[in-house]
Amino acid sequence: MTTAPERPPLTATANNQGVDAAVAAARRVIAALLHAGDSTAAEMAEVADRLNAVADHVEDHAPPREARMVDMWAGEGVTRHDPVTGPENAIAPPLPLAGREDGAIEGTATLGMPYQGPPGFVHGGISALLLDHTLGVANHWAGPSGMTAELTIRYHQPTPLFEPLTVTGRQVSVDGRKIRSFGTISAGGRLCVSADGLFIAKHLSRPR
Amino acid sequence: MTTAPERPPLTATANNQGVDAAVAAARRVIAALLHAGDSTAAEMAEVADRLNAVADHVEDHAPPREARMVDMWAGEGVTRHDPVTGPENAIAPPLPLAGREDGAIEGTATLGMPYQGPPGFVHGGISALLLDHTLGVANHWAGPSGMTAELTIRYHQPTPLFEPLTVTGRQVSVDGRKIRSFGTISAGGRLCVSADGLFIAKHLSRPR
Repeated sequence: MTTAPERPPLTATANNQGVDAAVAAARRVIAALLHAGDSTAAEMAEVADRLNAVADHVEDHAPPREARMVDMWAGEGVTRHDPVTGPENAIAPPLPLAGREDGAIEGTATLGMPYQGPPGFVHGGISALLLDHTLGVANHWAGPSGMTAELTIRYHQPTPLFEPLTVTGRQVSVDGRKIRSFGTISAGGRLCVSADGLFIAKHLSRPR
Repeated sequence: MTTAPERPPLTATANNQGVDAAVAAARRVIAALLHAGDSTAAEMAEVADRLNAVADHVEDHAPPREARMVDMWAGEGVTRHDPVTGPENAIAPPLPLAGREDGAIEGTATLGMPYQGPPGFVHGGISALLLDHTLGVANHWAGPSGMTAELTIRYHQPTPLFEPLTVTGRQVSVDGRKIRSFGTISAGGRLCVSADGLFIAKHLSRPR
């Protein structure tokens, strides 16, 4: 028997090998392409050829979509493929989330250029993406969870790129099948974005 | 003088060469890695090496961040780097948007596994991302535009992956600096998600 950690991780942890390492490298590629822009110096036609060759190779070794869907949804644990926390999804920043003693959850991520909205700031829709997912995980942590029915996002001030952001979520109330949750994104102690979510306690069936 | 097209594009069009072609290939890599999962057959350590080599090469040829920020925000035209429509951003599906005669805007995209929330369906936060951006572009198309102050997303039914989605947006009212907009995501004529946005008519300064 081991001692429970103070803040148990609620999301999958990247293991820096296998597909996780390849996905981490793909994130570097995404950011590098945005930083380079339409640079002739980088010989983008050759870069495209190299990336298409990698895609061809990986596609050739991928299982059929249906089999993969069953596999990725096997078990009851945390997902490894989602676009917010997933170590297997290069779109995910990723945002690791852990449980706090007060029943809320919290995570930190620094977002780069791929997540830009206004010049130098995080896209409002990316903030909504992070918060929707965080509220869902907060519900799992606190008790009953479900699917988003309504999400209200309030933008208090622009959310900076290239700085550590703290994302929090907590379940506020459960009334029958209606679950209400609240979350925030802050930077350097300043509140940037908040979210109120209404969730309905139901889950879609997992493929088998 | 030329005749205006019926549905003028309001977003950047990928030109299938230069960085756009490399980004399109990076999108294939992102999806292929998710489809493959932790496959030993695909020799992911070698895949990681190849992707890191591409990232190294492109990073070596990228301008300093500040210079790139000035460049990407030059002019007053549509952006090429945003995470929804940008041909230079591998995170973007991308969603091309065009103006309709009735003053609304519309676009179509089919989302794959990187955008998954519940099994087989689009992540609710991804729907929020697409709608936030679409409302912003709808404001540009209709008249005054600005920054999101509040966004309310309603989830009517799950939004399917692997099927064409129609995304619409329109400006509803302008009252001083307050701009209200409405948008939808539908699949096969069925309404999946709707959004009400409140925007404030201001813009952050572009880097120079």
